[in-house]
Amino acid sequence: MKGRLRVVLLGSTGSIGRQTIDVIERLNRAGRKLEIVALAAGRNVELLAEQIEAIGPDVVSVAREEDRRELSRRYPKLRVLHGEEGLAELAGLEDADIVVNALVGAVGLLPTLRALEGGRTVALANKESLVIGGELVRAALTEHKGRLIPIDSEHSALLQGLSAGKREEVRRLIITASGGPFLDTPLEELERVSPQEALKHPKWKMGPRITIDSATMVNKGFEVIEAHHLFDIPYDRIDVIIHPDSIVHSMVEYEDGSIIAQLATHDMRIPIQYALTYPERVGTDLARLGLDDRLELSFLPLDEGRFPAFSAVLAAAKAGGTATAAINAADEVLVKRFLAGEIPFTAIAQGLNSTLEGWENDAPLTLAGIRAADAWGRAFAEGLFQ
Amino acid sequence: MKGRLRVVLLGSTGSIGRQTIDVIERLNRAGRKLEIVALAAGRNVELLAEQIEAIGPDVVSVAREEDRRELSRRYPKLRVLHGEEGLAELAGLEDADIVVNALVGAVGLLPTLRALEGGRTVALANKESLVIGGELVRAALTEHKGRLIPIDSEHSALLQGLSAGKREEVRRLIITASGGPFLDTPLEELERVSPQEALKHPKWKMGPRITIDSATMVNKGFEVIEAHHLFDIPYDRIDVIIHPDSIVHSMVEYEDGSIIAQLATHDMRIPIQYALTYPERVGTDLARLGLDDRLELSFLPLDEGRFPAFSAVLAAAKAGGTATAAINAADEVLVKRFLAGEIPFTAIAQGLNSTLEGWENDAPLTLAGIRAADAWGRAFAEGLFQ
Repeated sequence: MKGRLRVVLLGSTGSIGRQTIDVIERLNRAGRKLEIVALAAGRNVELLAEQIEAIGPDVVSVAREEDRRELSRRYPKLRVLHGEEGLAELAGLEDADIVVNALVGAVGLLPTLRALEGGRTVALANKESLVIGGELVRAALTEHKGRLIPIDSEHSALLQGLSAGKREEVRRLIITASGGPFLDTPLEELERVSPQEALKHPKWKMGPRITIDSATMVNKGFEVIEAHHLFDIPYDRIDVIIHPDSIVHSMVEYEDGSIIAQLATHDMRIPIQYALTYPERVGTDLARLGLDDRLELSFLPLDEGRFPAFSAVLAAAKAGGTATAAINAADEVLVKRFLAGEIPFTAIAQGLNSTLEGWENDAPLTLAGIRAADAWGRAFAEGLFQ
Repeated sequence: MKGRLRVVLLGSTGSIGRQTIDVIERLNRAGRKLEIVALAAGRNVELLAEQIEAIGPDVVSVAREEDRRELSRRYPKLRVLHGEEGLAELAGLEDADIVVNALVGAVGLLPTLRALEGGRTVALANKESLVIGGELVRAALTEHKGRLIPIDSEHSALLQGLSAGKREEVRRLIITASGGPFLDTPLEELERVSPQEALKHPKWKMGPRITIDSATMVNKGFEVIEAHHLFDIPYDRIDVIIHPDSIVHSMVEYEDGSIIAQLATHDMRIPIQYALTYPERVGTDLARLGLDDRLELSFLPLDEGRFPAFSAVLAAAKAGGTATAAINAADEVLVKRFLAGEIPFTAIAQGLNSTLEGWENDAPLTLAGIRAADAWGRAFAEGLFQ
């Protein structure tokens, strides 16, 4: 990290966005020079306004036109954009070095592509960029000089483990999963679990969709897809094991019998900082993993019978094309319907399987094709179980 | 590994030596080209003769003149050497690429130096090279183009963990220790434990001295010294934690809060192969760590009150100079006397502390000075508890 690093932060008011600001402040206190030149948020205009006043960016973007007008009125000298075009413009800013994509949802794909096409480094927390647009992102990486660094703790662990050998020496990636709140629930009770029970994640406090996606392990299926595209490893060489302690964030098994694991606390600021300073590591005063007390780690195999939604996501991944876009959209709808009390927990997996069966994988693998698959998956999942 | 790799194997009849031959046969079956051009053994002439017939080396060396004559008679066309000079000559062979030093004891130091001075790669299993001669070995590495790759599972794990970052980004090395057979023995009973009890190592079958050194954790103290010299990390950044499962072979903690660990089965052929093929990794058909069954790993702090011999070794390490040579020699004598029933188990640590107190650290740090310290430590330990 030589000289000043100019950062575009997309999704600044979400959990990863706020923690990214904290990490950047810590790095600057430690003598590094990072400057946030642009912020994008959704509808949390009040928090964005606070961030604008604290950080002083050159340009910001919000989701809605009405919020753009409001911010322009409050900050007449600030350039304020809105909508997808606003995000794309921020991602393509000429003088940025790194784009942190902490957006939630399919809206994150276009900015990832735009940043990579501009030769930027993308620190990626937006899952959909790879889940629905993995092929497009890989094409952008091949054609341009951009770089893609994961922020997810699992993929950060894999990136670190991969530095201990060559890509062709990898036997498999082993992604760890906490197993969520229903790891030990009797299978016959899963049909009756309530949204409140499903929202109690044993390890992390996250938004409702990702918490339910953790309980169904749809989220872990998405992480397999992300790992596949990030590291160019075939699906049959990516395994998931259950690790309820969530201390080992993932592992790389090499052909010679060695397994390289990364361990850390649950603090997302550790992988966020690694993505910002990669390949360097910078000292931090965040709490460290306590190895001076007794520590117990357990690992157990993933029981796919317990997590049929995970299998559905993997089936979509292996089907390829725009199937993952359809599944992702259907999952968003099914989770919303489960949380609204319309369908039981087990219907999420059933709905994903129906979606995959119903989907005709013939939409072209373009942004427009992905959007069509997304719209189809959304409508299909709305019509299920009626 | 391009072309043929010519290997000198010192200590071919010991456990590491025999496993090295097995690894080389496996690598050759997998299409690699390694050739053992020289073998050295101690007094096990019968096994050495079998190895000569199976491998067909250009030259061999044995400890004693009488065994040299015997072998010369049996293999009139073979070049046979003996003694320290024989080992040194093998280590300095002009056409060798790699010297595997699996010798036991202080006799291993000179061949390590000779091989490094000749610009060879040394795959090192001989602990004494670094425990008593660390400064000389480092000087040889600095002055010549040789390379030193550890074979010990702990140091192999550290070497692998260190590839995930820069040396100056390391916060500390964390060496794991099984804790040996007396991890849970009430402290007041340690005085009365028998040689038979001390020889029952929970994880590994090894020679008697290293098994007792594991029970006292003298061996772990030696590993700290080796890590210090191998990786140029100060002693206050090398910690030991107890890990009775012996699956995580060691870890590297970085300044940014990430810890990189290497996991594998207990099979020494994994680190032996890594040392032979480093920095490449080659596929193996050895049994792999089973992550498809339930796996439990525990870690607990090292209680130095339980392992005073460990503290004595570290004190010698920090004293520097030839103190470690004196302590190593004294330990060899004290272990022998414990096994002979002359002194209780707890007297080993007491004797090491007395040795360190008695030692005047003024011998010059040369091969001759190290030998003088060794002789002094040996005599001093013989005279204790009389």
